[in-house]
Amino acid sequence: MSENLGLTPRAQDFSAWYNDAVMRAELADYSPVRGCMVIRPNGYAIWELMQAALDGMFKATGHKNAYFPLFIPQSFLEREAQHVEGFAPEVAVVTRAGGKELDEPLVVRPTSETIIYDSFAKWIQSYRDLPLLINQWCNIVRWEMRTRLFLRTTEFLWQEGHTAHADEADALREVLRMLGVYRRFAEEWMAMPVITGVKTEAEKFAGAVRTYAIEALMQDNKSLQAGTSHHLGQNFARAFGVQFQTAAGGLDYVWSTSWGLSTRMIGGLVMTHGDDVGIVCPPKLAPTQVVVVPIYKSDTEREAVLQVSEGVAKELRAAGVRLEVDSREGMKPGAKYYEWEGRGVPLRLEIGPKDVAKGQVFAARRTGGKIALPLVDLSEDVRRTLNEIQRGLYQAALERREANSHRDVSKDGLVALMEGEGGFAYGGFCGRVECELAIKEATKATVRVIPDQEFRSVAPPARCVWCGAPAATEAVWAKAY
Amino acid sequence: MSENLGLTPRAQDFSAWYNDAVMRAELADYSPVRGCMVIRPNGYAIWELMQAALDGMFKATGHKNAYFPLFIPQSFLEREAQHVEGFAPEVAVVTRAGGKELDEPLVVRPTSETIIYDSFAKWIQSYRDLPLLINQWCNIVRWEMRTRLFLRTTEFLWQEGHTAHADEADALREVLRMLGVYRRFAEEWMAMPVITGVKTEAEKFAGAVRTYAIEALMQDNKSLQAGTSHHLGQNFARAFGVQFQTAAGGLDYVWSTSWGLSTRMIGGLVMTHGDDVGIVCPPKLAPTQVVVVPIYKSDTEREAVLQVSEGVAKELRAAGVRLEVDSREGMKPGAKYYEWEGRGVPLRLEIGPKDVAKGQVFAARRTGGKIALPLVDLSEDVRRTLNEIQRGLYQAALERREANSHRDVSKDGLVALMEGEGGFAYGGFCGRVECELAIKEATKATVRVIPDQEFRSVAPPARCVWCGAPAATEAVWAKAY
Repeated sequence: MSENLGLTPRAQDFSAWYNDAVMRAELADYSPVRGCMVIRPNGYAIWELMQAALDGMFKATGHKNAYFPLFIPQSFLEREAQHVEGFAPEVAVVTRAGGKELDEPLVVRPTSETIIYDSFAKWIQSYRDLPLLINQWCNIVRWEMRTRLFLRTTEFLWQEGHTAHADEADALREVLRMLGVYRRFAEEWMAMPVITGVKTEAEKFAGAVRTYAIEALMQDNKSLQAGTSHHLGQNFARAFGVQFQTAAGGLDYVWSTSWGLSTRMIGGLVMTHGDDVGIVCPPKLAPTQVVVVPIYKSDTEREAVLQVSEGVAKELRAAGVRLEVDSREGMKPGAKYYEWEGRGVPLRLEIGPKDVAKGQVFAARRTGGKIALPLVDLSEDVRRTLNEIQRGLYQAALERREANSHRDVSKDGLVALMEGEGGFAYGGFCGRVECELAIKEATKATVRVIPDQEFRSVAPPARCVWCGAPAATEAVWAKAY
Repeated sequence: MSENLGLTPRAQDFSAWYNDAVMRAELADYSPVRGCMVIRPNGYAIWELMQAALDGMFKATGHKNAYFPLFIPQSFLEREAQHVEGFAPEVAVVTRAGGKELDEPLVVRPTSETIIYDSFAKWIQSYRDLPLLINQWCNIVRWEMRTRLFLRTTEFLWQEGHTAHADEADALREVLRMLGVYRRFAEEWMAMPVITGVKTEAEKFAGAVRTYAIEALMQDNKSLQAGTSHHLGQNFARAFGVQFQTAAGGLDYVWSTSWGLSTRMIGGLVMTHGDDVGIVCPPKLAPTQVVVVPIYKSDTEREAVLQVSEGVAKELRAAGVRLEVDSREGMKPGAKYYEWEGRGVPLRLEIGPKDVAKGQVFAARRTGGKIALPLVDLSEDVRRTLNEIQRGLYQAALERREANSHRDVSKDGLVALMEGEGGFAYGGFCGRVECELAIKEATKATVRVIPDQEFRSVAPPARCVWCGAPAATEAVWAKAY
């Protein structure tokens, strides 16, 4: 891609468009370390806003942040059989440190259940210590073969919640509460509609009893697993001896959960809202919500226009709007528009000499449409406009998802859909792993979730889309990132 | 230490007291990974407040956050000769990943200059791209032989600023600006007075032209290097080919800086303000600034007291005070006091039936002193009291430091001081590394800084404290963490 020639159109090559959009917005860059990326200031600023929104919700639901070691003794990983089977192939291992070979290799955390349960075993003695609700913001390493900026990288940033409970019911409430937090974050902050549900045995987290997820449909009709919440049962508690004295005076293992959401969400934001000009930031997650572009020719015009621009900036900043004034000299307005559009800034205010005379600004939405707004009560109009853009993005994404969700698909229909346009395919599922694997083999689609009630079809499919046996449930298939 | 028997007194064994104080406040815990620690919620909450204060100051001075890879190709480290010499002995190395031996081992970052300059070389083309002002919050690994919670751990959390400039003067302004930010943070947030100055050649950062530092005197009269700001000259720019087109049309290497401050600061907070009861949090960095303890015997009392307590909590929280109400049943007030004192909460409000009747609360400062405060305008009184505690802590620490700063020490005086009580020893220094090493050998004290003008003695010492040759400058010696 050349910056001056624009992005690869989405319709031509979505994957190339994605890379172009990320690079043009300067969200991230490739690094000399295989599979690792550099998150540039524009991308990191989005992550900071995501963190602030999520962290507030975690704390409001009683969680506290802590920090556990980056390194995990290899023997720890091996204590939970399914866990090690799932993660061993993709770990990076420190074998040498301080100039010496280590007696026991240290794994760079691919997730922190094991190292955290080792601490939980020390901290939890009695039912009075429960529930223990911990969250950690950190970096994670999983050795990936095929990487994509944000979507799949060897190192990524995330948060991982880890909680311990006195009984299964309380653990399950937590799993669903945090799934709800993820859904709210996706829908209200990212303007990205999601479906919620349970993963199949084949797709669940290594070591979990049951995995819940939020899944979103991207513009290329592939699904993005955007956040997961795991019911871990007593699996890790048994492996690490996390026992407590019950209220009744007995001894039991804690019931635990874990849940995570990562910088992959930035990729989801790009693929949900971006267009052929570049990324589009939903206002709630836009590091710059409004850019003011002063337009002038003469020095007299310049002075008047800049004065009004600075006044507008001051008023809007005071109203809590994240704003930049682009008063760079020697650069035409069109070039500035192009740059800020590529960065996804949701609203541009153009201020020229005629606008100054009329006491107005021109407001151009990144999502299309341009109208004059009076300077009087401008902050009110801007706030309303940003809210409209936020809602509009959600609505558009929801309509796109619904238009690409297909109910009660047949076997041939599923195959044709996955060979063609893709999307969410709802169908009956016998629940057997044989059918699941056969479908994956034939279509490259996987069961994204066994959808929650709210998302199920009014008339539940009677038969398995693949084998024709009576359906045990309804499932949603899609190709996925 | 047993929690019920109190801490080891500072006078008996400062080092044991430090560990007791950290454990009692539940700031951190040992981990099964050699030299690594777990930062518990109480410790992490202090770090979050430190981050917020610093991050605000970084952004106010034009810096943007970004994130660079955890792993650094070993060859990168080797490109700057002094840098690799300084860091090679203490790196952890990933040699195996994804089930295979790596062709080139990856070093877990001990600091990020090398991986960051690789990106800077791509991002910087012209003087218009300068200055480039980047900061990163991340984890760091340095394989340490002797570790102490927070003060020296194999893994720690920090921020590292990395900036590139068009000329040396601008780089030097940045180095000093950020040293000033660190000083302001130490003094205004941590209530920890510091001296500023330049490190000697022997003590400077590996790869720097010159290192500036803030140094604080702990209660055991050892110095804590609390933040460093490095003038890197063009050393790394040359090693990584970070060139730019100058305004005059030529080609030059950028001038760069780096500066860092870490979770070690939490150790500094403990050792600056703690007493034999436990840690003392300066109000600006206290996760809980005020704890309200309701006191009652009968159910009638209980109702009235809890109602007033909740009213107080609501009012103070609305005024921006970070507050907890400790209404745990079945626990005596004294046991609650003990617990919150150990956590360093600066102000406790006790509310009993008599207080309710009189329309007052009893306010007990963690630093000593207890008075009645009327419920009317309570938030105003609490805010004033917290400010007084903050100022009082700073003042007490400053007086302690001054009482333990010795001017114009002689050779025998320096030896006796470092054998005995310790402290900051100001003396003449010829500037020769031979004298510096001889002093270290004889006293275990190192030159903490060549102090900035503000901290120098009114009458500068004429001769080197060790060899008696004419002094090139004044220096400050101390034993150090």
